[in-house]
Amino acid sequence: MTDDTARLDALTAEIRPLNTAAMADARHRQDQLTKPRGSLGVLEDVSVQLAGLAGTCPPPMPEPTGVAVFAADHGVHAQGVSPWPQEVTGQMVANFLAGGAGVNAFAAQVGARVVVVDVGVATELPALPGLMERNVRRGTADLSTAPAMTRAEAVAAVLAGADVARDLVVSGVRCLVAGDMGIANTTASAALIAAFTGADPAAATGRGTGIDDDTYARKLDVVRRALVLHRPDPSHPLDVLAAMGGLEHAAIAGFVLAAAAERVPLILDGVIVGAAALAAVALAPDAVGACLAGHRSAEPGHTIALQHLGLRPLVDLELRLGEGTGAVLAVPLVQCAVRALRDMATFDSAGVADKEG
Amino acid sequence: MTDDTARLDALTAEIRPLNTAAMADARHRQDQLTKPRGSLGVLEDVSVQLAGLAGTCPPPMPEPTGVAVFAADHGVHAQGVSPWPQEVTGQMVANFLAGGAGVNAFAAQVGARVVVVDVGVATELPALPGLMERNVRRGTADLSTAPAMTRAEAVAAVLAGADVARDLVVSGVRCLVAGDMGIANTTASAALIAAFTGADPAAATGRGTGIDDDTYARKLDVVRRALVLHRPDPSHPLDVLAAMGGLEHAAIAGFVLAAAAERVPLILDGVIVGAAALAAVALAPDAVGACLAGHRSAEPGHTIALQHLGLRPLVDLELRLGEGTGAVLAVPLVQCAVRALRDMATFDSAGVADKEG
Repeated sequence: MTDDTARLDALTAEIRPLNTAAMADARHRQDQLTKPRGSLGVLEDVSVQLAGLAGTCPPPMPEPTGVAVFAADHGVHAQGVSPWPQEVTGQMVANFLAGGAGVNAFAAQVGARVVVVDVGVATELPALPGLMERNVRRGTADLSTAPAMTRAEAVAAVLAGADVARDLVVSGVRCLVAGDMGIANTTASAALIAAFTGADPAAATGRGTGIDDDTYARKLDVVRRALVLHRPDPSHPLDVLAAMGGLEHAAIAGFVLAAAAERVPLILDGVIVGAAALAAVALAPDAVGACLAGHRSAEPGHTIALQHLGLRPLVDLELRLGEGTGAVLAVPLVQCAVRALRDMATFDSAGVADKEG
Repeated sequence: MTDDTARLDALTAEIRPLNTAAMADARHRQDQLTKPRGSLGVLEDVSVQLAGLAGTCPPPMPEPTGVAVFAADHGVHAQGVSPWPQEVTGQMVANFLAGGAGVNAFAAQVGARVVVVDVGVATELPALPGLMERNVRRGTADLSTAPAMTRAEAVAAVLAGADVARDLVVSGVRCLVAGDMGIANTTASAALIAAFTGADPAAATGRGTGIDDDTYARKLDVVRRALVLHRPDPSHPLDVLAAMGGLEHAAIAGFVLAAAAERVPLILDGVIVGAAALAAVALAPDAVGACLAGHRSAEPGHTIALQHLGLRPLVDLELRLGEGTGAVLAVPLVQCAVRALRDMATFDSAGVADKEG
């Protein structure tokens, strides 16, 4: 066993189930607050989950928020699955660092900090102030003709993502958001989702950034061929990641595992992060307890991934940008859920009469 | 024509359609930003609507936010349509002012200010610091046996709500949220929704705070009898409001009209605010241009109201609390929509390659 494999085993061994006593306390407290019972809907469930994650009721406020955008390139781009040039991945990294992307606008609005991680960009990036340089390899191989990466590279990327999460938590972050950037990464996501959920490739494959019928046909063919070539076994998630994943998928899987180990809530973004979460939960099933589904993307594979994870999205507005944007939108909703549980008066404390009978 | 009626006519005459040139500018600008076209989904539509409302692109940021909670009582409570004592309306007013209610927790989290307006509470309230005292009458009459109020009272309540909106805008507020408090007000809302949309009373009537089968049967019977008694004509919205509405419905209708006249965006809450918005839009159809649907409530009549208004809810998490809570959750989403339009880099400015072909 390599050192990296031992580190990964130690990480997954740290992950424990939610604390059911704290969850019961939260459910009981919700029923004392000055509102009809259950009237905060899904937000009551969020507050209960976060109490279980923290092991105390009320749980700490999930703030400040740290957004990590993991960028990487994909060899499968050579198959013509995207109308965007591969150079856009690196150009968007520069745009994130300059504050000009969608995730920057949303994060600024909700008071979240954004860090940008190069875990596998193909082009050599200029020295960019603020960039976290964790490049494991300069883009994956073409998953439709060969394994995307070695197993050792997959493990290294998982650990890189885990380290980013730990660093954010050490710096005081109490709510994590994972985002992605990588031209062609919805192709790898579709393959991963089909592998981990057993979904038909046609159901798991969508139009990503908006592609025409010919490109879609090529993309679906690529996903089908990859599944035939690699015969992925979901009970061996690292092998699945290595065969068909992106370096950002592996890193985000590690980010999820570290969030669960640190018992800090993590808000998932769209289809790329959803595919990565499937890998994380395959490695450590209890990791799902740290996960909230920030939104449902317009990409059809994302709905399949969320169903498999058993998560209900908080925002459902047909976004399909990635970068963490959908998850960042959910940050205030998650904060409000905990804030209500923590701060609302009870019927007794406020002198409000309860419902009769 | 009374002075009040003249004031209301002047108010509705101020309301103009959205500015289509500013909307076209916003749509064009969205297509230059560093993201796949359309990838911000519904939030792109929100930004375009707000540009049309402001008459400029980008529109001003919709902040700070002012939430007005309109409280009133309902004579129909005597019919046993709710398990909550009527005194809870006044007790919750005190709870709002003390900061202990759900809307206070959410508003504090998103940085919104809350004002509380007594437009028709039945019980005499103690001197409560901060309460806006605009009581038109101490609760409505029982709508199942008589008109809920006179037409003059309805107009007075509409104008009271409009004045609250104007005062908030004068104080610097650039995003308005309407909320409600009033035991039994989902009964009046169901009657209004049936009247304005033509929906079947059984489809428009829900279980409000959570009522048992017997109470539901009484509530539905009350709504049906009210519709037979008053034969409401939606082309005479003030008469409909007077016959079956609550004082908070009338005030919120005025709040909507003033928001539209001031061209400040208004985020609607749940079924009570939705019913009031139907009245406002019946009085001035272009008022809908100022309205965003903050959320979809679990109450079935709310979905009918939103469909009639042609609005898509931004949050859909089975809340059914009222007070403005669902709308406040949507405040950051609306802010993010405008922030992205205003602040994101363009492909040209960021040096990011556009999609090929």
